[in-house]
Amino acid sequence: MKRTENLTPFIVMDILQRANEIGDCIHFEVGQPDMAPSGGVLDGMREALDDGQFPYTPAKGIMPLREKISDFYKQYYRVQVSPERVMLTVGTSGAFLIAYSILVDIGEKLAFTDPGYPCYKNYSYVLGIDPVMIPVGAETNYQMTAGMLAEHENVKAVQISSPCNPTGNLYGKENLLGLIEYCKSKDIGFISDEIYHGLVYSGVKEHTALEFSDDAIVINGFSKYFCMPGARLGWMILPEKLVRPAEVVMQNLFISAPTMSQIGCVHAFDYKFLEDYKAEYEKRRDFLYNELKSIFKIDVVPEGAFYIWADISEYSDDCYNFALELLENARIAVTPGVDFGRNNTGKYIRFAYTRNIEHMAEGIRRLKEYLKQR
Amino acid sequence: MKRTENLTPFIVMDILQRANEIGDCIHFEVGQPDMAPSGGVLDGMREALDDGQFPYTPAKGIMPLREKISDFYKQYYRVQVSPERVMLTVGTSGAFLIAYSILVDIGEKLAFTDPGYPCYKNYSYVLGIDPVMIPVGAETNYQMTAGMLAEHENVKAVQISSPCNPTGNLYGKENLLGLIEYCKSKDIGFISDEIYHGLVYSGVKEHTALEFSDDAIVINGFSKYFCMPGARLGWMILPEKLVRPAEVVMQNLFISAPTMSQIGCVHAFDYKFLEDYKAEYEKRRDFLYNELKSIFKIDVVPEGAFYIWADISEYSDDCYNFALELLENARIAVTPGVDFGRNNTGKYIRFAYTRNIEHMAEGIRRLKEYLKQR
Repeated sequence: MKRTENLTPFIVMDILQRANEIGDCIHFEVGQPDMAPSGGVLDGMREALDDGQFPYTPAKGIMPLREKISDFYKQYYRVQVSPERVMLTVGTSGAFLIAYSILVDIGEKLAFTDPGYPCYKNYSYVLGIDPVMIPVGAETNYQMTAGMLAEHENVKAVQISSPCNPTGNLYGKENLLGLIEYCKSKDIGFISDEIYHGLVYSGVKEHTALEFSDDAIVINGFSKYFCMPGARLGWMILPEKLVRPAEVVMQNLFISAPTMSQIGCVHAFDYKFLEDYKAEYEKRRDFLYNELKSIFKIDVVPEGAFYIWADISEYSDDCYNFALELLENARIAVTPGVDFGRNNTGKYIRFAYTRNIEHMAEGIRRLKEYLKQR
Repeated sequence: MKRTENLTPFIVMDILQRANEIGDCIHFEVGQPDMAPSGGVLDGMREALDDGQFPYTPAKGIMPLREKISDFYKQYYRVQVSPERVMLTVGTSGAFLIAYSILVDIGEKLAFTDPGYPCYKNYSYVLGIDPVMIPVGAETNYQMTAGMLAEHENVKAVQISSPCNPTGNLYGKENLLGLIEYCKSKDIGFISDEIYHGLVYSGVKEHTALEFSDDAIVINGFSKYFCMPGARLGWMILPEKLVRPAEVVMQNLFISAPTMSQIGCVHAFDYKFLEDYKAEYEKRRDFLYNELKSIFKIDVVPEGAFYIWADISEYSDDCYNFALELLENARIAVTPGVDFGRNNTGKYIRFAYTRNIEHMAEGIRRLKEYLKQR
């Protein structure tokens, strides 16, 4: 099967499974929050259970939640987004499938960075899209630039993510604006994955692509900042002319997003809860970054999300075996860099700071001890 | 966009929206149960909320539910299915996307019936698959046969559904076996949509494709028989050699199915509840079928699911306008046949018996009165 022969499995899932078999492991591999969502969400879902109904919703989702998301853009970014342009999706996963389906035809090109989120490439293969993987590194703080994009002909759409998985870096305002303007001038679709928005530290404020363009497709959801990966609920902000095409794909590919999750997430915009949660993650980031800097070379400052991209070349040039070694010999689970692309990824591993400081401190103790006697 | 230009929207959704605007309508259009799921499901979800965690699950889903599904095949059909071959999906919708991705390459052919479930065709367009729509009618009780399939070259996979939406008919054992054997002899993938299993009436027992072949992909879920369309939880039974390819597509396109739905559905196999629910739907079927027979020609006996396919040619050859006429003038919502294909569908409408008898009796009263004075 040509469609699936290039698909890559999530290596991190194998690591997770092996970590669970070994037991008593320190978890730096898992890219999901360890906390419960705000109490309002849970209460909202309890009420829905008392009602007991599980109907489909309209394909675009329930209006009260689409209005809350519209409010979020006003309050958080001071950007006006009509609820008509908001569509609820089955995680951000479902949103990518829809965005690519309506922007990129079979055989056409979609561009994104390498390293980057591995699924962008795999959606492309499933949909018969030709992926253009643009190598990035420390020279541009792991960002794609308009200049890099200009080296590729016939790109139909561009996918960026900021803050980025696996590097934790943020697109600066100037570069983001430059990319958006370049895409506009060439009639290239622009898709901004903003799933880690909210989790940006040191008082830095992230920019949504919607501050600079109403033509961008913005993708976000409830899995990271709102602590509900298992709710499988995301959203898209669509340019007006793409709302109906996206809705038709949503109807046919998904019918609608999970109803209970939609009902609960009406209560997810609890800004006090979200501030406290971010403050906790900032402490974790500070702790882990300071520790890892003394062990590995780190060529990208982790400004957001919950990842640190560590250069292990002093110890190994084979991140996969290094990760297995750490797992088997020191009971520390990390994600090998090769999960995120082919560009120089063999000498990196990704650390997630999704567990508390006590847990991570034990991990650092084990790591130092193991590397000393290695 | 070639990919999306042939996609058809769900006309039924427009009908539903207009019906809600008009108010006081009788709903024969909606293809979802009007009941709550069994109490055990709701209690299971309440416990999960008390725990408050929303993690991703493994891509294939949680083992306790996969084991329950394995038990269901043993108890309901006397077929052995290892839990390793069970994968939980985002509704049956998600299962189709995965099945087609792993069986049919870009540009290759997928065959299914016309009329039939409209999404089969639309998934094909999104995935760059060439859909082969096989016209069926009353001559073969709206079933595809091996003979019909033999008229088409290079078919890579076949999709059937039984009981069928929109016709409510069931594939007989002999024809099902004939199709499966033909597909086996030609190395054609066989996909059986069994989402309406359980809802089969008059003491007839439906057959799963797994009774005749371990190579079939069987798709089912919790939206119809288990009363939870909004849970967005389906499952696939996969041949052993396709388990891993399907898992890799699931990881990349969905990560995992909704966690709360998975936890709740562990309690969904409450056979007493399911028997009572089916008995209620059988009463509704008997009522509506007896009434409609005296008004329209009905050329296919509704053996299962919750639909009746009514030939309106005595009144109109334009089902879309006839449906609008019933809606605007008699406040009765039905689904125009053209939602389900292009083969002679203009002279049919689909009735769903998903509301109680009192509601439907009022609909029949309105229908008779309107047609008399029309």
